Amino acid sequence: VTAERGAGPVAVFGCGLVGASLAAAWSAAGVEVWGCDRRDLQPLRRRRWIARQIPAEELNQAAVVVLALPPAAVCAALQRYPFRSGQLVTDVASVKAPVAEAALRLPQGVSFVGGHPLAGSTGSGFECARPDLLRGSTWVLLPGGSRRARARVEELVRLAGAEPLTCAAERHDRLLALTSHLPQLLSTALAAELAALDDPLAARLLGPGGADFLRLASSPAALWCEILAANRDAVAGALSAITSRAAAPAETLENDFRAGADFLAQARRSKTSKAR
Amino acid sequence: VTAERGAGPVAVFGCGLVGASLAAAWSAAGVEVWGCDRRDLQPLRRRRWIARQIPAEELNQAAVVVLALPPAAVCAALQRYPFRSGQLVTDVASVKAPVAEAALRLPQGVSFVGGHPLAGSTGSGFECARPDLLRGSTWVLLPGGSRRARARVEELVRLAGAEPLTCAAERHDRLLALTSHLPQLLSTALAAELAALDDPLAARLLGPGGADFLRLASSPAALWCEILAANRDAVAGALSAITSRAAAPAETLENDFRAGADFLAQARRSKTSKAR
Repeated sequence: VTAERGAGPVAVFGCGLVGASLAAAWSAAGVEVWGCDRRDLQPLRRRRWIARQIPAEELNQAAVVVLALPPAAVCAALQRYPFRSGQLVTDVASVKAPVAEAALRLPQGVSFVGGHPLAGSTGSGFECARPDLLRGSTWVLLPGGSRRARARVEELVRLAGAEPLTCAAERHDRLLALTSHLPQLLSTALAAELAALDDPLAARLLGPGGADFLRLASSPAALWCEILAANRDAVAGALSAITSRAAAPAETLENDFRAGADFLAQARRSKTSKAR
Repeated sequence: VTAERGAGPVAVFGCGLVGASLAAAWSAAGVEVWGCDRRDLQPLRRRRWIARQIPAEELNQAAVVVLALPPAAVCAALQRYPFRSGQLVTDVASVKAPVAEAALRLPQGVSFVGGHPLAGSTGSGFECARPDLLRGSTWVLLPGGSRRARARVEELVRLAGAEPLTCAAERHDRLLALTSHLPQLLSTALAAELAALDDPLAARLLGPGGADFLRLASSPAALWCEILAANRDAVAGALSAITSRAAAPAETLENDFRAGADFLAQARRSKTSKAR
């Protein structure tokens, strides 16, 4: 904890669901956390999730800046803010190729280690934040940055209870199109189609499987439209792959059922072994 | 309870997940339940979920026969077994148009009230059964049958803890294509696509939303291929509707997000009010 304090303050730029949850976890671990947001962060100060609220002009006084913003805002911030040499910058955006691209234009001496914590909820805003939001989850880190910068980011990842995993931006975006963006898109499309039926029985004929499938449909629209737009090529490719599998004659689906069940079992085993 | 006993024995034909769960719930409510299955039902007798195991030839000695079988087996049973006049027959198949059609050829005097309890799990077999599987769920009943037969079936539905809802076969199949069959199909297609990538990171990059979406991928393959085949037209229509929504430019999806979130909120309210 003393070491953490000595490593200098961490500024969280964007104190919504993820930013405020990280602030809470890091503050609890003894890190000095500053918050930066258009909203008044007094509620986070009262909970001691941040030590103080800073204006954007003071971001460059922090040792570490965490851009906890949607993808386009992360890219804009990387281009707009005068980060200083020696500063470590990271982010949490769920689409990484545009972020990696924008980071190429950072001034010399700024260490950038892009990231994506694979957690979240269908809520948004710091009202939905909680210190354990990231606990047990995977936190993707892009390659790059100095060895010292990567060690510091990995330390922060672990202090939030997550497990760092290095993955290149394009591979991340292609995989996330399937593991996250397409589930969101299909859940919303199905819910919208059910709404369009305007049949009073539709809601009552939702079984437990369908309800799980639709859970994501309550996710925040603006953030998700932006994510889907930012990763549109990979999402379109994923949609077309899934659609052609789903359109196959039902009698030929046994292989997909078998392969899919195997994948799911393997995914669950990997979660269990990670949790140990 | 005495009234239940007086109403005559209920034969559950097919003691898998749903059949055995119903047997358990009804036996606990004082109904005399007989089990009929290729498997030895000694484990169900020991738990007192059935009073005895009968061979198929004795099905026509029961007051009520519940065909707790997959859709094609329900249709075959409706055509093959010599149900007797005065007997009440119902089923639990998740596709109703072929069942309603097959029931038209039942002998005069047999009362048929088709049904579909909207519950289940990704497990199968009586090992996964539990008395409360249906508790709080909706149980669709097809129109038709005598008033006395409908009253008896509705009584059995309520004894299992479910709520009866009358819905015509075609409307049921069209709605279920969206609320149940397509979620299953897309979950399996996504899991199979992830398996086909053969990327060791795929399983680790599964967030909480993706994991929920994939939960159905462990459902039993043979049963689901049969359901998807039996409802193929409605499923194909649903797939094409969802696909065209999902293929729209991300910037135009805000309406779908809004409509979808509204539908989900309404569905949750209707579940809550039902549970009261």
